[in-house]
Amino acid sequence: MYKEKIEKWGLFEWSGEGYSEGNSFRDYDIKAVIKSSDEEKCVRGFYDGDGIYKVRFMPSFEGKYEFRIEGSFSDKVSTGSFEVTAPAGNNRGPVGVCDTYHFKYADGTPYYSIGTTCYVWELQSDELIEKTFKSLEDAGFNKIRFCVFPKHYDFNLREPRSYPYVGTPVDSSGITSENFQDYTGRTDGNDWDLYRFNPEHFRHIERCIARLADMGIEADIIVFHPYDRWGFSMMSGDQDIFYIDYLIRRFSAFRNVWWSMANEYDLFERKNLADWETIGSYFMKNDPYGHLRSIHNCKEFYDHSRSWITHCSIQRQDVYRTAENTDEWRDKYKKPVVLDEISYEGDIQHGWGNISAEEMVRRFWETAMRGGYPGHGETYYDKDDILWWSHGGELHGESWKRFKFLLRILKETRGHGLKSDNSDWKNWDSVMAVPEDDAKFKETGYRIFYYSFMRPSFRIFDMEDNIKYRAEVIDTWNMTVTDAGVHSGRFRIDLPGRQYMAVRLVAQN
Amino acid sequence: MYKEKIEKWGLFEWSGEGYSEGNSFRDYDIKAVIKSSDEEKCVRGFYDGDGIYKVRFMPSFEGKYEFRIEGSFSDKVSTGSFEVTAPAGNNRGPVGVCDTYHFKYADGTPYYSIGTTCYVWELQSDELIEKTFKSLEDAGFNKIRFCVFPKHYDFNLREPRSYPYVGTPVDSSGITSENFQDYTGRTDGNDWDLYRFNPEHFRHIERCIARLADMGIEADIIVFHPYDRWGFSMMSGDQDIFYIDYLIRRFSAFRNVWWSMANEYDLFERKNLADWETIGSYFMKNDPYGHLRSIHNCKEFYDHSRSWITHCSIQRQDVYRTAENTDEWRDKYKKPVVLDEISYEGDIQHGWGNISAEEMVRRFWETAMRGGYPGHGETYYDKDDILWWSHGGELHGESWKRFKFLLRILKETRGHGLKSDNSDWKNWDSVMAVPEDDAKFKETGYRIFYYSFMRPSFRIFDMEDNIKYRAEVIDTWNMTVTDAGVHSGRFRIDLPGRQYMAVRLVAQN
Repeated sequence: MYKEKIEKWGLFEWSGEGYSEGNSFRDYDIKAVIKSSDEEKCVRGFYDGDGIYKVRFMPSFEGKYEFRIEGSFSDKVSTGSFEVTAPAGNNRGPVGVCDTYHFKYADGTPYYSIGTTCYVWELQSDELIEKTFKSLEDAGFNKIRFCVFPKHYDFNLREPRSYPYVGTPVDSSGITSENFQDYTGRTDGNDWDLYRFNPEHFRHIERCIARLADMGIEADIIVFHPYDRWGFSMMSGDQDIFYIDYLIRRFSAFRNVWWSMANEYDLFERKNLADWETIGSYFMKNDPYGHLRSIHNCKEFYDHSRSWITHCSIQRQDVYRTAENTDEWRDKYKKPVVLDEISYEGDIQHGWGNISAEEMVRRFWETAMRGGYPGHGETYYDKDDILWWSHGGELHGESWKRFKFLLRILKETRGHGLKSDNSDWKNWDSVMAVPEDDAKFKETGYRIFYYSFMRPSFRIFDMEDNIKYRAEVIDTWNMTVTDAGVHSGRFRIDLPGRQYMAVRLVAQN
Repeated sequence: MYKEKIEKWGLFEWSGEGYSEGNSFRDYDIKAVIKSSDEEKCVRGFYDGDGIYKVRFMPSFEGKYEFRIEGSFSDKVSTGSFEVTAPAGNNRGPVGVCDTYHFKYADGTPYYSIGTTCYVWELQSDELIEKTFKSLEDAGFNKIRFCVFPKHYDFNLREPRSYPYVGTPVDSSGITSENFQDYTGRTDGNDWDLYRFNPEHFRHIERCIARLADMGIEADIIVFHPYDRWGFSMMSGDQDIFYIDYLIRRFSAFRNVWWSMANEYDLFERKNLADWETIGSYFMKNDPYGHLRSIHNCKEFYDHSRSWITHCSIQRQDVYRTAENTDEWRDKYKKPVVLDEISYEGDIQHGWGNISAEEMVRRFWETAMRGGYPGHGETYYDKDDILWWSHGGELHGESWKRFKFLLRILKETRGHGLKSDNSDWKNWDSVMAVPEDDAKFKETGYRIFYYSFMRPSFRIFDMEDNIKYRAEVIDTWNMTVTDAGVHSGRFRIDLPGRQYMAVRLVAQN
């Protein structure tokens, strides 16, 4: 059973019946060889419950493909073919690293990551999930970071819509905001078969991933996280591999999948660096499509120079200075820098969750102008404990309204991305963003000067005498771009003496 | 000629005629031995022009003093006596270091420095100087940092009211905001006798210092600075010593004098570290009263652990993070940390001169709560180029209105000063300020939790079960202290979810 026509970078799925005696998740295998004139891949399938086995594949070329499926799940061999057509809509293929510090879609379009975090949005009610989709669309986010496992934490005390395993969870009736920490990192009271998945948990997540793909949103999947009362953060190495292998078999054919090995890897009681190396390397070796891979810290940075890590996924280490360190981290790791947690806009009691919208937007611009990629989050106190940061739903803040504008500015960048250029001491007090491969654009000049919380009422520029620059004043908060004339050599640009302003100079041909 | 009655820490001044052939500044000497039953000091006098020599002395005890004045300036020896009475008004004696990181007046009163910078306010017109005095009073500053030498810089192109030396300055008629840098660090075009002072220049500064003393304001005198078109930053070592010796003889008997060797010592073309060591050590050796001594950086910090340095006078090195480094600098130098430049509230084009009032006040609190002492400055663009930062005059900003309130909170501190306490991880996201000698106050608990730009809508406190704390919510921007009840053990304090809030807990006896 399969569709005979799919898009390039779309999802080919075959399903068929097989043996269901014993534990089909563990006892039987299924794999496929799929080939066209341009590629040939061997992919492994998975058991989806109810006697049904599936194989998924993401083709990277147009044209005719043939497949051959076999394995211990059945004594039959299945063969067939399908046609791969041109991509359409938001389908630009999976995102990969480009020019060391940046990203692009497989079709070559630059990808400027403007992400958000909603840890378990997809494990909420259908109604809330629908609200989240709407909010994602309104804000224009193009990446969302979330967990496969449910979350246990302050404001996260309810049961999720489903569990990834068959069994019964610990009784949560006595857990409150006051005592939830006593339950963190416990396994007792739970009764799971950690070799028997609950397929509906994964099917539901897949429906969410697919819908995100349709919307042009990357799904940054957090494989493990420590905010846990069910023991999923405390599994054995064998159980971990059993789980991540299932994830790879099920999810990797979705073009918009990114793998985040962990949220806050350094808070796990029962995992050490060797465990994380095993997990990260397993993804690198077994994901047939080489989706982006990262690991996220609480306090201590992981060594992002490890070969299985494709990009840095960073949580701030300093209460005050984070976005401003983007240059340093680029230099250190020579990989794209994604600041997946730079604090949350909100007003909750926790110090990581109550910065202003202005400060959030400022951190976005600081990061983006330095050639990094910022991540949003929101934690406004809510009487029903529905906080965007974990549950999605509606956005209550002010920062999210300003990201489409930043994305527009980034899309107008020349080349594949920006970097900051500190070579001119006169700009010590601002971020001068230039194209990553500036040498290529030297003749055609492109500069954004970002002034952050500083409030100059004018600035003097010393540019080339022989290049005419179109000057624009950008108000990053009010989202306006105002023409400020064409200039050469030394000239003055007036500014309103407010925070969060920038000046863009673009050479005129 | 002298007054027979002066206050303790007041200024005793003797004046008399002497030889005026040749160069009286250099060719004759005058010194005095002054003693009471409690102290005996040998102090040196100075030539004040017009054939008049003077000797100044600051007594540190009450009671009867006798003096004997002699030297090559005259063939007569003068003797006499005077009576020292109790200090009155704002006279609490000179400020010195206390408890390693803090300051106190000689009478034991804690001194919490809330300073400002007006580089050459005293070299402006009488009218402008009067405005400055009024502004200083309105704002409640208790320290002002300023130069003896005139300043040449953007917005500082006019001639000062007087020059320190006899001679003629470079013609300034062609200097503009555009080309002023071409004149910086030049000596040509000037014609000075660098061994012949203009006494009126110093007399005028002394009148300003004395009036500051009456107002209870410390005069942080900048001895050298590099923003110069007259060559005063380029003098020889011998000329430097000749000058600083004159400063010591004239100024050191004013109780409110502090010596700042330089503004931005690292920008001088013709001075190296050995020169600064010579200058600083000279003050240490020759100032009879041991006034506070510091040296201020532009980019590179001086080694503030040098023995002649009594406290750190710091200019931020980082655009983003300065006040937050107070703890680090305290630990490193084991001296009081005075952040004399943490950027200026304003809207000028230069990146050091355009932060918001909110950010300035935030930096003040961040510094103060960490046991350092912040310094204000203001640079609002003005059509007549009158900027507080250099010229004094009126204050146009919003931050200055909020420093008396901070000073009030500091004065309510238990003990001699605050420090931050990071021992409790639950406060990683706030500054918990405690008394410097907290051990002494453990039984009577005193805590300020400062939340900076964070906006918690409530906080949970875990305090001792057996101590009753009076809780107050402090709005550092709106300058309110609101009672939040008496609590023990674990309790919750509601906050308005705005920036710049603090909670103070004071144990009730």
